[in-house]
Amino acid sequence: MQKVRVPLGDRSYPILVGPQLIGRLGTECRRLGLGRRCAIIADDQVARRYAQPVADALKAAGFDGVVIAFKPGESSKSLKTVADCYDQLAAHRLERKSFVVALGGGVTGDLAGFVAATYLRGIEFVQVPTTLLAQVDSSVGGKTGVNLKAGKNLVGAFHQPRLVLCDLDTLATLPEREFRAGLAEVIKYGIIADAKFFAWLEQQLPALLRRDVKALARAVARSCEIKARVVGEDEHETGVRAILNFGHTIGHAIEAISGYHKFLHGEAIAIGQVAAAQLSRKLTGLGPTDADRIRALFERAGLPVTLRQTKLQRERLFAAMKLDKKVRDGQIQFVLAEKIGKVRWGVNVPHKLIHEVLDAP
Amino acid sequence: MQKVRVPLGDRSYPILVGPQLIGRLGTECRRLGLGRRCAIIADDQVARRYAQPVADALKAAGFDGVVIAFKPGESSKSLKTVADCYDQLAAHRLERKSFVVALGGGVTGDLAGFVAATYLRGIEFVQVPTTLLAQVDSSVGGKTGVNLKAGKNLVGAFHQPRLVLCDLDTLATLPEREFRAGLAEVIKYGIIADAKFFAWLEQQLPALLRRDVKALARAVARSCEIKARVVGEDEHETGVRAILNFGHTIGHAIEAISGYHKFLHGEAIAIGQVAAAQLSRKLTGLGPTDADRIRALFERAGLPVTLRQTKLQRERLFAAMKLDKKVRDGQIQFVLAEKIGKVRWGVNVPHKLIHEVLDAP
Repeated sequence: MQKVRVPLGDRSYPILVGPQLIGRLGTECRRLGLGRRCAIIADDQVARRYAQPVADALKAAGFDGVVIAFKPGESSKSLKTVADCYDQLAAHRLERKSFVVALGGGVTGDLAGFVAATYLRGIEFVQVPTTLLAQVDSSVGGKTGVNLKAGKNLVGAFHQPRLVLCDLDTLATLPEREFRAGLAEVIKYGIIADAKFFAWLEQQLPALLRRDVKALARAVARSCEIKARVVGEDEHETGVRAILNFGHTIGHAIEAISGYHKFLHGEAIAIGQVAAAQLSRKLTGLGPTDADRIRALFERAGLPVTLRQTKLQRERLFAAMKLDKKVRDGQIQFVLAEKIGKVRWGVNVPHKLIHEVLDAP
Repeated sequence: MQKVRVPLGDRSYPILVGPQLIGRLGTECRRLGLGRRCAIIADDQVARRYAQPVADALKAAGFDGVVIAFKPGESSKSLKTVADCYDQLAAHRLERKSFVVALGGGVTGDLAGFVAATYLRGIEFVQVPTTLLAQVDSSVGGKTGVNLKAGKNLVGAFHQPRLVLCDLDTLATLPEREFRAGLAEVIKYGIIADAKFFAWLEQQLPALLRRDVKALARAVARSCEIKARVVGEDEHETGVRAILNFGHTIGHAIEAISGYHKFLHGEAIAIGQVAAAQLSRKLTGLGPTDADRIRALFERAGLPVTLRQTKLQRERLFAAMKLDKKVRDGQIQFVLAEKIGKVRWGVNVPHKLIHEVLDAP
């Protein structure tokens, strides 16, 4: 088992990475001194598979857990599901010292984290991410939230978990497409912060694709280390935390205009990162070799790297980019790379250039 | 104008107390460097009276404010009203640097504060309380929240405002019953922390009841000073902040079992404080003279001090006390007084004693 610490003063917390960790959840929670009652929040699918072992592990350590299940899918990241969860927490008499276990992928972590952030003005929570994307990204850093009709993640809170437990065994059963989408965030960490890790990914991609546990352990732990360091420096995204959004300006817009159906998040940001690499060639000095390596790695991971659009779709893409939370005074801001392992944030990019890179084959 | 500072490090903020302050709201917000766009959240009644002067004051200082109004009353402190507010904030394109102005009484402050705490994972907000209760209590300290069917304030967040602006002129039009209910919290500050202030209240009650602005200024400012000091010591109520709940254990239960209709909050806690004073005589050494002075001051303020109940109502009262957020392991915890100006929190009280003091005429 590897242990990564998210350094946030007295709110610091560990990320545990390894196989067979769910069985240790109870002991770890007891070590943290959490209250006896807890609620395990999961979607129906994940609950069917993991709610029992999770509840057993908690019970063995003296905790009393109730399972709250909801319909799988992004549409459950809503105020309605939040309200249902509150009602169940109240029905099960959760108190201020009680806690929530977010068991599942990104939707569950965001939803359950927001519920924990706001029930009784905030109770503790623990993340047990069961997808690659959630293990390397959404479960770490304390961003929680749900969607409004007007946009994704428009409502939320910063609420740090007390523990993130990444059981690598849960990745074995992940659908292939979802696994590959998770790799898009892993590759991102190489680009934004660690050229050696990027090179290691180039070399170890076959092992990762066959889900070799040793390779996965390194990929997940290193990704978490990088995210933990960035979050520790800038918890509320007033500065450097923005670099985690490399590829996300275009990526989020792609998801938005396709109604969050056509592309998985990881697929959309793969396209976004390749486009950002092209913009980086033009604006921040990224060399042609690095740009090619970036594109090639996403392609080898089986991820989309280009976007075919009609003129109307392109217009909608730009409109969506302007609605992004990070827009400042109407200017679209990008994170761009100087080289693999080093990026710069807050770069204004002329619309014309964005069109150019999206037009390139 | 008097200025009280809530000492919370880099989140410290001023409470301004005085007449004719609404006209200065814009200048004060500009001094804080808040973003251009804002939303003024108020109930229909308060909006009719004050939305225009507030919007004008903001506009004169260069801000662009939209008014979001909701139906008056405790029933609007709901997730439904919160969702409506979010939709309107999104429709008006509020950004991360935008802010919310909570204009009104306790319901508005709690609701609008929670909306601000969670929209875009938290935007800034300013409190403009227009009732005595809100000026001396709910607008200060950062507790925000809404009700569930299962109970009051079960959902919420700690989110400190950037400024609290108590315009004493707004108290002139307050209905008599509501004004007197606000005095119950003012008197509480004397009991929990300042015997001299209590004596001043005994002396100045006639001036306060005729709403003399000079007396009001002292009462509001001193109440805010005490609350600010307590909140500064214990923002998240892990310890001393509990003393603010003097009289609230029984008071909250009285409100709950009467469906929040029969008694105003201030009336319920007047009864609760008189009962707590009786318990204090039995358990924490409060002298008979002090207990009599406490009861007499609430009576002179025109507030209820006893509760006539059937046996069934009494049972429901106890059930409600056990549901309180502050219950620990089923034990009902009280704040009790040693003398006027000094209290102790976390005192376990046997049920029998509670019955006794409630039975006494």
